[in-house]
Amino acid sequence: MGDLISLLRTGLPDEAVMADPDVTASYATDMASFCDSGAPAVVVLPRTVEQVQHVMRVATELRVPVVPQGARTGLSGAANASDGCVVLSLTRMNRILEIDTVDRIAVVEPGVVNAELSRAAAAEGLYYPPDPSSWEQCTIGGNIGTGAGGLCCVKYGVTSEYVIGLDVVLADGRLLRTGRRTAKGVAGYDLTRLFVGSEGSLGIVVRAVLSLKPAPPAQLALAAEFPSVAAACDAVCAISQGGHVPSLLELMDRTTVRAVNDMTRMGLPETTEALLLAAFDTPDPAADLGAVAALCTAAGASAVVPAEDAAESELLLQARRSALPALERATGTTMIDDVAVPRSRLAEMLDGVAAIADRYDLVIGVCAHAGDGNTHPVVCFDPADADQARRARASFDEIMALGLELGGTITGEHGVGVLKKDWLARELGPVGLELQRGVKQVFDPLGLLNPGKLF
Amino acid sequence: MGDLISLLRTGLPDEAVMADPDVTASYATDMASFCDSGAPAVVVLPRTVEQVQHVMRVATELRVPVVPQGARTGLSGAANASDGCVVLSLTRMNRILEIDTVDRIAVVEPGVVNAELSRAAAAEGLYYPPDPSSWEQCTIGGNIGTGAGGLCCVKYGVTSEYVIGLDVVLADGRLLRTGRRTAKGVAGYDLTRLFVGSEGSLGIVVRAVLSLKPAPPAQLALAAEFPSVAAACDAVCAISQGGHVPSLLELMDRTTVRAVNDMTRMGLPETTEALLLAAFDTPDPAADLGAVAALCTAAGASAVVPAEDAAESELLLQARRSALPALERATGTTMIDDVAVPRSRLAEMLDGVAAIADRYDLVIGVCAHAGDGNTHPVVCFDPADADQARRARASFDEIMALGLELGGTITGEHGVGVLKKDWLARELGPVGLELQRGVKQVFDPLGLLNPGKLF
Repeated sequence: MGDLISLLRTGLPDEAVMADPDVTASYATDMASFCDSGAPAVVVLPRTVEQVQHVMRVATELRVPVVPQGARTGLSGAANASDGCVVLSLTRMNRILEIDTVDRIAVVEPGVVNAELSRAAAAEGLYYPPDPSSWEQCTIGGNIGTGAGGLCCVKYGVTSEYVIGLDVVLADGRLLRTGRRTAKGVAGYDLTRLFVGSEGSLGIVVRAVLSLKPAPPAQLALAAEFPSVAAACDAVCAISQGGHVPSLLELMDRTTVRAVNDMTRMGLPETTEALLLAAFDTPDPAADLGAVAALCTAAGASAVVPAEDAAESELLLQARRSALPALERATGTTMIDDVAVPRSRLAEMLDGVAAIADRYDLVIGVCAHAGDGNTHPVVCFDPADADQARRARASFDEIMALGLELGGTITGEHGVGVLKKDWLARELGPVGLELQRGVKQVFDPLGLLNPGKLF
Repeated sequence: MGDLISLLRTGLPDEAVMADPDVTASYATDMASFCDSGAPAVVVLPRTVEQVQHVMRVATELRVPVVPQGARTGLSGAANASDGCVVLSLTRMNRILEIDTVDRIAVVEPGVVNAELSRAAAAEGLYYPPDPSSWEQCTIGGNIGTGAGGLCCVKYGVTSEYVIGLDVVLADGRLLRTGRRTAKGVAGYDLTRLFVGSEGSLGIVVRAVLSLKPAPPAQLALAAEFPSVAAACDAVCAISQGGHVPSLLELMDRTTVRAVNDMTRMGLPETTEALLLAAFDTPDPAADLGAVAALCTAAGASAVVPAEDAAESELLLQARRSALPALERATGTTMIDDVAVPRSRLAEMLDGVAAIADRYDLVIGVCAHAGDGNTHPVVCFDPADADQARRARASFDEIMALGLELGGTITGEHGVGVLKKDWLARELGPVGLELQRGVKQVFDPLGLLNPGKLF
């Protein structure tokens, strides 16, 4: 280990190599529950591509595993350290190198915080859509690693749609430039998108070319109260079938609505079984909301409350953004699942989750990016109660099994990490898994990059 | 070869195995110029996944290369046969299996013709955007193989954005199911998009899940005449910078406009140096066209002619769609390049192409998906004139070199095939190329799938 640290210091400033166990221990985990982690040997905080290359060369020479990290806001343990690893934190590579308003691209380092890029783009009349709920903390590098989503995805898609070029330091320290700055390009295999969602297991992203959109008009929202989850899901299907393209379409169940009320005193209607939030950022959002309101009413909504203006819309969105903190506050520890199903199966998914909660005698609140069929069942439990913790984990797994049964995926946007490794194998099947492992082998033949994640 | 054909016949109906050399010769090439091709040993036309698996098992057993083909409308020789190969034509697997209006997806076999899917989607109020100019002939499988684009990409993106799940028969005959039916999903590496643009070199796509959009309103177009290509490109940049999102933004140079006029008698303004076509499919396209007209005028347009209605718009689009046939008719043989540059470099690209045409004493007409920076310089020549043919090929290559110099790519949407193999290596560089070859090796260790293409 002395070797490791002194070799690292030959290419990094002293302050960028931290080996104090108290410090390194603080880099051991991301925000996932129930995931194993180890004790890093050292944490490095490079500021340049060359320094990252140096780290990877040393790691390759000494055969030491490397765990790349952004802001560690991930929810699957993908950034958890393993014993004796180098934690490679990219947070100091946080410059926005370029925003081009004609080409509509941004070129950024991996440590740029999502919200900072969003604000910088907005200042130029542009828009970087992906908006995970951790957007004020999480980094673009982490977003690329997990393939992050957010509230806007129902209209604007996920991180993958916005990554068009990457510079990547490979396991052996070589630099790969992949992709493009152009709007289109099909020169060879799409290695760029292979890195998106690869959880740092194929290389270290050190620079990204991101596609931007023109800033849309401010969105206008409505809230619709439903007497049943099934009725709310019917409305979601009708909105989709009606050809509407909301910029947000979120569902909160009764448990979630009550928790949010308790925390925020927002006065959401507690009698409802499901609350649907819809928003449009179109030229005439009030007209679009009117059409959606009619569909909600036809599906059985007991009340539809359109926001009068942007400020009221923002309040409704705050309710949604408070969902997870509110459930945590109400119930102690939570475990957030991330199962996406075809939109048409959403009602079955939510009914199934309710049945699982009953069966395991647990509180499971659900909020969902309903327009995408992406549910976040939040299993609430007391970790000090061993039996409850066991039931929590078992219900979490059953929720994934249900998602697969309904033609869905075990993860819509949070990734696999260590939390869902066994489930990834189930979703992919043996042929898919073998090919994924083959791809890993091409990029990282010594298995040094984020070992133990994904598969 | 007797072995090959009799083994193929053990799993395919007689009429699906064609070994008559007159027949097989007719499957030797796609529509690219200047590309080598060989004589296939046999052409097979399976109708089922199992039959494709059988073909690949036989090919693996006998170590015979397999060249997958769709409608052979490709422009890079990616579907050209090699000597002694099995041509695997997917054209009989042409069923649309499902269109789901709630999930907004289509599930199709690879031989479905692009226009047939588009029409079937439209009948359900949905929209499959990618619209290569061969859309009445080309197949979805071919579109996936090449990563096809089209006129709509400036707003709607390319094939890659619409492929969310695939069933693929691997080189050894095993079936891989990759991707999803859900709107979102990040379970493992994105192998699905790795297949898009892979030119049949990684596996045989036998089923695709495609994402659809709600059908937009009919688009309304305008034509703007410019006294110089540079002024037209200034307008393109201003439109982008102004935050406009046209559904089409096409540029035709003087050579192209004249050729179209000669063929179609459309009466396009021959005095112009560049003609820009813009269209919007927004709720108020006339307003959007008005804003774009003002930008064109400010950039120096000598005339701006908005279409009054959908029929007039369609006429303008017909002019653009006639560009390639018109250039061919005017000049005999053509060689269509496909270089994309950042939008901000479009003027430099077009100026550079004009200089190359001068230097080589050739006619090179340019039409461009200007909004994407994707140019199609069309090199016109007489193949019977050896010196002219040599100059044509040399100018074609210089156009690619110029594209790379300007930060662009050698292919925006037509692919690499055999036509641009040397250039792919230049664009990717040694590290990228090595990784691409590594990926190929994982999927096709014996090198049987479309050998000699890409790299």
